[in-house]
This record gives sequence, structure tokens and C-alpha cells, in this order.
Amino acid sequence: MKLKYDKFLSNLTQFMKASEIRELLKLVEKKRIISLAGGLPDPNSFPIEELAKIAQEVIEVYGKKALQYAPTRGVTMFREVLMGFVAKTRGIKVPSIESIIITSGSQQSLDIISRTLIDPGDVVLVELPSYLAAINAFKIQRPEFVGIPLDNNGLRVDILEEKLKKAKEEGKKIKFLYTVPIAHNPAGVTMSIERKKRLIELAEEYDFLIVEDDVYGLLVFEKVDTTPIKLFDKSGRVIYIASFSKILSPGLRLGYIIAEEPLVDVFERAKQSMDLHTSSLSQFIAIEVLRKGVIEKNLPRVREMYRKKRDVMLDAIEENFPEGSLWSRPVGGLFIFAWTPKEIDTYKLLPKAVEKGVAYVPGKPFFVDGSGTNTMRLNFSYPTEDDIKKGIEILGKLLKEELSTRYP
Amino acid sequence: MKLKYDKFLSNLTQFMKASEIRELLKLVEKKRIISLAGGLPDPNSFPIEELAKIAQEVIEVYGKKALQYAPTRGVTMFREVLMGFVAKTRGIKVPSIESIIITSGSQQSLDIISRTLIDPGDVVLVELPSYLAAINAFKIQRPEFVGIPLDNNGLRVDILEEKLKKAKEEGKKIKFLYTVPIAHNPAGVTMSIERKKRLIELAEEYDFLIVEDDVYGLLVFEKVDTTPIKLFDKSGRVIYIASFSKILSPGLRLGYIIAEEPLVDVFERAKQSMDLHTSSLSQFIAIEVLRKGVIEKNLPRVREMYRKKRDVMLDAIEENFPEGSLWSRPVGGLFIFAWTPKEIDTYKLLPKAVEKGVAYVPGKPFFVDGSGTNTMRLNFSYPTEDDIKKGIEILGKLLKEELSTRYP
Repeated sequence: MKLKYDKFLSNLTQFMKASEIRELLKLVEKKRIISLAGGLPDPNSFPIEELAKIAQEVIEVYGKKALQYAPTRGVTMFREVLMGFVAKTRGIKVPSIESIIITSGSQQSLDIISRTLIDPGDVVLVELPSYLAAINAFKIQRPEFVGIPLDNNGLRVDILEEKLKKAKEEGKKIKFLYTVPIAHNPAGVTMSIERKKRLIELAEEYDFLIVEDDVYGLLVFEKVDTTPIKLFDKSGRVIYIASFSKILSPGLRLGYIIAEEPLVDVFERAKQSMDLHTSSLSQFIAIEVLRKGVIEKNLPRVREMYRKKRDVMLDAIEENFPEGSLWSRPVGGLFIFAWTPKEIDTYKLLPKAVEKGVAYVPGKPFFVDGSGTNTMRLNFSYPTEDDIKKGIEILGKLLKEELSTRYP
Repeated sequence: MKLKYDKFLSNLTQFMKASEIRELLKLVEKKRIISLAGGLPDPNSFPIEELAKIAQEVIEVYGKKALQYAPTRGVTMFREVLMGFVAKTRGIKVPSIESIIITSGSQQSLDIISRTLIDPGDVVLVELPSYLAAINAFKIQRPEFVGIPLDNNGLRVDILEEKLKKAKEEGKKIKFLYTVPIAHNPAGVTMSIERKKRLIELAEEYDFLIVEDDVYGLLVFEKVDTTPIKLFDKSGRVIYIASFSKILSPGLRLGYIIAEEPLVDVFERAKQSMDLHTSSLSQFIAIEVLRKGVIEKNLPRVREMYRKKRDVMLDAIEENFPEGSLWSRPVGGLFIFAWTPKEIDTYKLLPKAVEKGVAYVPGKPFFVDGSGTNTMRLNFSYPTEDDIKKGIEILGKLLKEELSTRYP
């Protein structure tokens, strides 16, 4: 496995010091490392033949537009077909294409939201744990993070209500809550319908926005309810973000935000000074992909591929992890989240794990309250089934060794 | 001409109020407007057939990488072939690929530089006039702009020296000077070799960085010296930015920054939270484009196309503009800059011009000192030769009418 093309390094640079990474890479250089630290789709999931043909066609037929500058808000035709796609696949009825802005992947959606909505000191509510790259994108604007715990039914809306009351009493401005309701990254849990409805009620009562990150809404392998929070939104409080990275190809850098028009106006102005617009070629390719139903045709195969890999990892963890460990059983997505016995510090353990040939992402940086020292995020989408088995075996053995050394 | 696909609107949104734009668009709706306000390449300049074939090939052959996530700094192979390209075409010897970061177009390069280098209150030196989108990207960080006039030999380094002395006396921190040395946008002038050398000396003496925007370095139609400032840089003060938008296709969103490694490290961290990385597909397409020499083969044709259009516009201005007008004779690029007689306010005149069927960009927003009320930027790359003639004719007539109304 070539680590350069893995998100291994970039995932680690999100929270490690440069010197720590260099130390880690020294260990990596000489040997083959099984990386469970990445967040990459399986390249076998890409509809390569279809995309090669489509790319050629759109350049030949629409080249004068597909290679030209495009509107900042996104190619008009793309937003039109996208409206149909989100209606069909996610039940979301977008009132007009002006409520959609195309972004250069979800990362840019988060950056735009951060730059336009957060004033220093604003309260931003995030889950415990929350998606690391979102935390980092928001952090730039220096908000006050308030963490809300999760359980198997997702966001603890009861604790959220307590925190909201407290913030209100303290006269703090709550800007938004950021949530990954379906197949949460990293926690692997899915929010129940009841909690989604309650969340909307609380947003009304306490007057804040909800940023719904639907990254895995279409990447669910089990029969569970996947209704987006956006469907319960009556007053335009939900800013819905999604992307084509996990259901088509991350390399095209295609994401989008659906929100009230005046908000999208603001996002558009920000994006204009960020990159003018998202790749026209990517957008024209996506138009044809949606017209031809490539994603709908491809998705069942991808879901099956990931379901199998998830099961291989779950079985391996069951077999190898020490007593006292806990882990998520995600209905979709790319990750399993694990709690080792409390004695383990997964951050400190990482160099040892890499030395033994396996990498993971320590869970602590995902917790804005500094907890989670005994957690780790494990990726099952990219490594082969064999590597998943071997990687988890190495990790389980190391965890057991570590525990026995400490309590001999 | 479909204005949606022109940069007409987006160019205007950079400085006009939403209400003003709406008023302007009402005028536009019902009739055909000749837009000299855009900044688009001629779509006939795109090597469409070659790109269609290359896009298909790279997805078929490298699909697993070209559709996957890529390193934030850019695809390694792309940076390698790019090193060869800038050495061959611009004489720039990059010490290693780590001194290059691939960006999503020059706009993102400017945004990255703004976010990482400018602290509020820092002095940022810009030309009078300067590229509007750069001013806007920098403005977000609230610097103090200091404007340096241009003449036919580019930046007035003598006035620069005075301003530097003054800033030093006042104890101000000068962060960088931003310059478009070749075929300046919008002013159309080119910096002489002597001034480039003097600029480097001043940067050493007064300890500031130079951001060299080489957007048109390869789009020059005359036999003039186009040595980049970067070639005189001995201490790593020059941050060199360039892109593929004007020499290949803007729709691919491909730009790059060449700078000292520690600076590029900082840029990389910023880019990570902005969009993770630039489209992998665009980067893989560019690899093959560079390997096959597509740009070198295509450029002579593009230069000739633009040289002709520039000459058509110069002739039309000569013939139609009122006495007392001045205009640039750019050696390259996409624009002519014009000074009308002082009585004219080009910002106020714009709605009238649009009503008569022609649009331009008023020059004032390009001047950080609030001057330039009687200037305008005219694009010759996108409109047809016929439209250039007609557009300038309408504009010239309007200017003359305006002058005679004021002084009947």
C-alpha cells in the first residue's frame, strides 16, 4: 500500500505535530503498513469505464462550456438534474436551483459555512465525537465548541436541551449544530426519527441553525430509516450538505449545499473569492452521470462490497480485541469506531502500532471536550479483506500485550 | 451571447451591490448585450479533441488514482512534469517538487496567500490599478493597502521606495507586494528588466515578500522580454503563482504556487481545510497534456488569435473614442485598459452603456486609493472581432454624447 495516496498522512496532519509525523513516517518507510487510518473509498467502487466514456463525450460535445469558466453557484444544468436526484434518492424537494450551490467537495462546504456563519466566540454545537475535518474547518473562526454526546440512537437530544438552556442563561449566541445523522463519522451511529424531530423542535425553540452532513445517506447497507433531517425542516433552519465523493468519485471534488436562497447568496460570495467556481469538467461529467443513472446502477454493488468488508472487520474485532472493548456496528459509511479498555491511550500507542505494521486514527481529536483517549477510528472501505483481518489481528494482539504489560 | 456563462455577472458582483446588479440585469434581459466586461478565454482556443482523448485515456488507464483522493500538495507525478514545464517555458528552476503546491486555480492561490500571510493591519502593496479579485481576496484579512502607480514600464519602483521609507518610519509591517509584471491585468503594461531587478533589491532592503502573478507570462504576442521576477530572486522572497486557465482551460481549475518549502508547508495546511485537494482528474489530464506537449503545440495559434483581436480593438478605439482618451497597448493578456476624459464617471455610465447594448468593467474598483473614476477595462479575448468593433463603436459614441451633453 502506497501511503502517499492514502489519506493516512493527511488524516494525521490534522492533529499531529510535524515532528511527530516525521517520527511516524520514519517507522513507516521501511515496511509495509496496513492502514486502517485512511478514509478512502475502495477504488474498485469507481465506475471507471462509464466515466471514461462520459468524460470523452462531454468534452467533445460540450467542450466549449465544459472547459470554460462556469458560474460560481454551479453549472445551471447540473443544479437542475441534481434537484431531480436529491428528490428521487433523498426525498428532498428543493424549491429552485437558486437554493443549491455546487462546491469543491464537502470540505469546501464546511469551510464556506465556517467563514460565513461563525463569528469568534459563537457557540457551535458538535457531536462527541465529531468529524475531525469539520472541527478543524470551524476552529479557524474561533468559536466556542460545545460537545453533545451520542448513543446508539444518535444525538442525545436530552443533553442537548440542557446545554441549550445553560447557554441561553449565560447569554451566549448559539450559531449552529453540526451533525452527521446517518452512519456517523466517526462514531458509526444513526439518529432515530424521533430525535431528528426533537432536534428540529429545539432548533426552533432556541433559534439556531442545523448543518446536516449527509455524507453517507446513500451508503447504507442495512434496512434502516434514512430520512434526512431536512425533510422535517419547516422554517429553513437546516443547511444540508452532501457530496459525490463516496457514491461516485472523490477525485472529481464535487459537493453541494442546499439551503435557503439568501444563505446561498452569502455562500456564493464567499466561494467567489475562494476558487471562483468548481471544476466545470467535473460538473459536466456529473450531469451525464445523473442523466444516465450511473450512480443508481453502481450503488448496490458498492454497498455490498462495503457491507462485506464491514462484516469482516466486525468479526475480526470480535475475535481479537481484548475484554472490555466496545465498538460501533455502523449501518453504513466507511468506519468502525472502537473503545478500548480505559487504560489504553490510543494516541500514545500509535507509534507502536505503526512499528508492528498497522495504522489507525486515535479518537481523541474527534472529541472537542478532550475525552476519548481510549478510542480509535478504523477504516474498512479501502483495505482488502485480508488486510482488514491481518490489521485487526495485529492491533488486537498489541492491545492485549499493552494491557498485560501494565497489569502483569 | 449568454451572459450566464460570461464572467460578466461575477465580475460585477465583485464590487457592485446586489440591488445595482439587479437593476443592470433588468436592462440586460430583453436584449443582446456585447460584453467586454468578461475575462474569459476564447472557447475556440481550447484543444478540445486532444483533451477529450486524454480525459478518456487517463480515466481508463489511471482511473483508480485519477478518480481517488489525492495529496493536498498535488499529485506527485503532476508536480514532477510541471517542474519540467516551468523550467522549459519560464526558465524557473524549482529545487524540488516540495516547493510546488497545486491549487484550484489562481483565485485559490490568492486566497491561500491571503489567509496564511496577512494579519489585520499589515501593509500589502498593490499596483494602481491592481487585479480586482486579488484585492478582494486580500481584503478579507483587513490589511492596509498601499497603492503604487504604474507607467509604461510597469511598477514605479521610485515611488515604491518612497512609500517603503514612509512605512518604515511609521513602524508599519510590510507583508508583501502583489504584482502582475507581464501584460498587467487590468493596466496592460509590462515591467522592465531594470525595474524587476530594482524591485528585488528593495524587497531585500525593506524585508518584504513579492507575490508574482504570472498569469499571462505565456500569453504574450510581441517580442518582448518576459523574464519572471522569480529568476532574480536569491533569497526566496518571490512567491510565484500561475495557472492553466489562460493557456489550456479555466474549467479544469488548475493553478499552482512555487515558493520556499516552509511557506508551501503552511499553504498546504491551509488548503487542507479549504478543499482537501484539487481535482485529481484535472491533475491527471494535465500530466498527459504536459507529456504530450499539447500546450506548446496549441499556444502559437492562441496567441495569434488574441493578437488579432487585440489589434481589432485597438483600431476600433483609435477610431471611435473621444479626444483626450488614453489606452494601453498590451503585449499580451486579455484586456485593454482605457482612460476616458476626466469628466466621465465610468461607474455611473455603465447602466447607460448596458442600455445601449455594451458592457465593460468600470476601472475604479481596481484602484485601492479610490482614483480611476474615468477608467474602464475592456476584454478582447472572448467577443468576436465583429462584436469588438460594434461594442467599441457603441461605447465611443456614448462617450462622445456624454461629453457633449455635459459641455453643450
